[in-house]
Amino acid sequence: MKVIKSAASLFKYLKKLKARGKSVGFVPTMGALHAGHLSLIRQARKENNIVAVSIFVNPAQFGPQEDFKNYPRPLPKDLALCRKEKVDFVFLPRPEDMYAEGFSTYISVEGLSETLCGKSRPGHFRGVATIVAKLLNIVQPDVIYLGQKDAQQAVIIKRMVRDLNIPVKVKIMPTLREINGLALSSRNAYLDKKERQDALVLSKALALAKILIQSGARDTARIIGSMRRLISKKKNAKIDYIAIVDTENLKPVKKISGNYLIALAVKIGKTRLIDNFQGRFSTQSESVPA
Amino acid sequence: MKVIKSAASLFKYLKKLKARGKSVGFVPTMGALHAGHLSLIRQARKENNIVAVSIFVNPAQFGPQEDFKNYPRPLPKDLALCRKEKVDFVFLPRPEDMYAEGFSTYISVEGLSETLCGKSRPGHFRGVATIVAKLLNIVQPDVIYLGQKDAQQAVIIKRMVRDLNIPVKVKIMPTLREINGLALSSRNAYLDKKERQDALVLSKALALAKILIQSGARDTARIIGSMRRLISKKKNAKIDYIAIVDTENLKPVKKISGNYLIALAVKIGKTRLIDNFQGRFSTQSESVPA
Repeated sequence: MKVIKSAASLFKYLKKLKARGKSVGFVPTMGALHAGHLSLIRQARKENNIVAVSIFVNPAQFGPQEDFKNYPRPLPKDLALCRKEKVDFVFLPRPEDMYAEGFSTYISVEGLSETLCGKSRPGHFRGVATIVAKLLNIVQPDVIYLGQKDAQQAVIIKRMVRDLNIPVKVKIMPTLREINGLALSSRNAYLDKKERQDALVLSKALALAKILIQSGARDTARIIGSMRRLISKKKNAKIDYIAIVDTENLKPVKKISGNYLIALAVKIGKTRLIDNFQGRFSTQSESVPA
Repeated sequence: MKVIKSAASLFKYLKKLKARGKSVGFVPTMGALHAGHLSLIRQARKENNIVAVSIFVNPAQFGPQEDFKNYPRPLPKDLALCRKEKVDFVFLPRPEDMYAEGFSTYISVEGLSETLCGKSRPGHFRGVATIVAKLLNIVQPDVIYLGQKDAQQAVIIKRMVRDLNIPVKVKIMPTLREINGLALSSRNAYLDKKERQDALVLSKALALAKILIQSGARDTARIIGSMRRLISKKKNAKIDYIAIVDTENLKPVKKISGNYLIALAVKIGKTRLIDNFQGRFSTQSESVPA
């Protein structure tokens, strides 16, 4: 496994591979790899000649009051995991190379970036879109793999790739969970034992919504109200948002129909966690996928 | 010469060429081709296996009160010129394909886009940066050729390419002029006979600035003042701006030194024209290039 730190040397390495017609599958990460990341890497391994992983804690997507400094960076462990998964190369750029002096170009995906997580994290998705475009230009993969856990990010990157004609296929892979339901996240590392228990309230609220919809509930305000009541029982949980939106334009829907996304962000102590559930409701079958 | 209208068919065509190791030189245009465009095409022809030209009047870079509707579109003549210059393919996208329903991704080059022409054309350079990024993703050239006539655009595209790691080389070619000094522009077609005479005031003001600097003038406010007085003598000329700025960051300079750009925009009747002169002043030689 190669560890490549500069875009220039990566460019040379890739040129040779591309000339030999090798396909490249790419998993961009901020490190602190967990089984969710590994599932993306394994999917990339299955479908491509070359698997590329980037590890870069991107300053541009953190707000001034956020956890950029404390974000976990267990690099030796991350590299060992990549090696084990037969990753071909890890791109490990230096912040000063990614944001050179006078850096001033930003990509905004308007309409999708200001809602949900964007409300309490202004500028976050601009930072995400910009770094992903940069990484795609550097790594030039055939396929990029993203997790459904970051549902809004996935919608935004798909839209950016379409709008800017970026020649890459975007694959969104399912959220991985602990047996108790907790969605895997690098930020779970911030939680103490008690908070890990409290954090189950996110997936429980989603499970409640699912049951309500299966039982015939259609009014999203009422479903959200039930979720809110469930979460409010935990003293240590502070709701940032709960929303039921269209999966493509992320606009709130009043009645459950078509493709919908139930998304929420909740602070457990000082740790902000997110989770979501994507469903499809058809009046024919009245079925809701698990 | 191929005329390709969809990004998808261009993608297939390019894949074959790239597999054979062909280099691609790209000249993006809004059509209404003049000798300035042809000089870019000839340079591309000299330096690459394949020459690509795009013709697309980009709605995103026109303001609501601007000349999008009336912008000249002499397509058969443009295609004949491309054929004569041995262009390999012309990309001629449809607006509805370039800006599909729900289009919402924009690229901003901050700090460089709000000054000079950006002041009176808000959103213009956002539209330019976005379409150029799209075209670069579609055409995937090795080199893109731009004219120095649009000096601010050239600086912005260079910065975008650097900041977003777009794998392309940017070459800026000199402004072409009529014998009387008028910079070639597709918008010159709007001028009547009298206005064509009045329009010479732009290049004359630049020539005056050059002479003043050669004679020892260093104070940019005084140089701009002299240019302003010269232009004000023409009743039909309305100054939008005259500025002397750093060639990299486009910030105003007080004293002539290093690399500087003298840029101006003047309305002649209803037609807004721009011109510029890029100079280098070194205290050693005290020389100013012609």
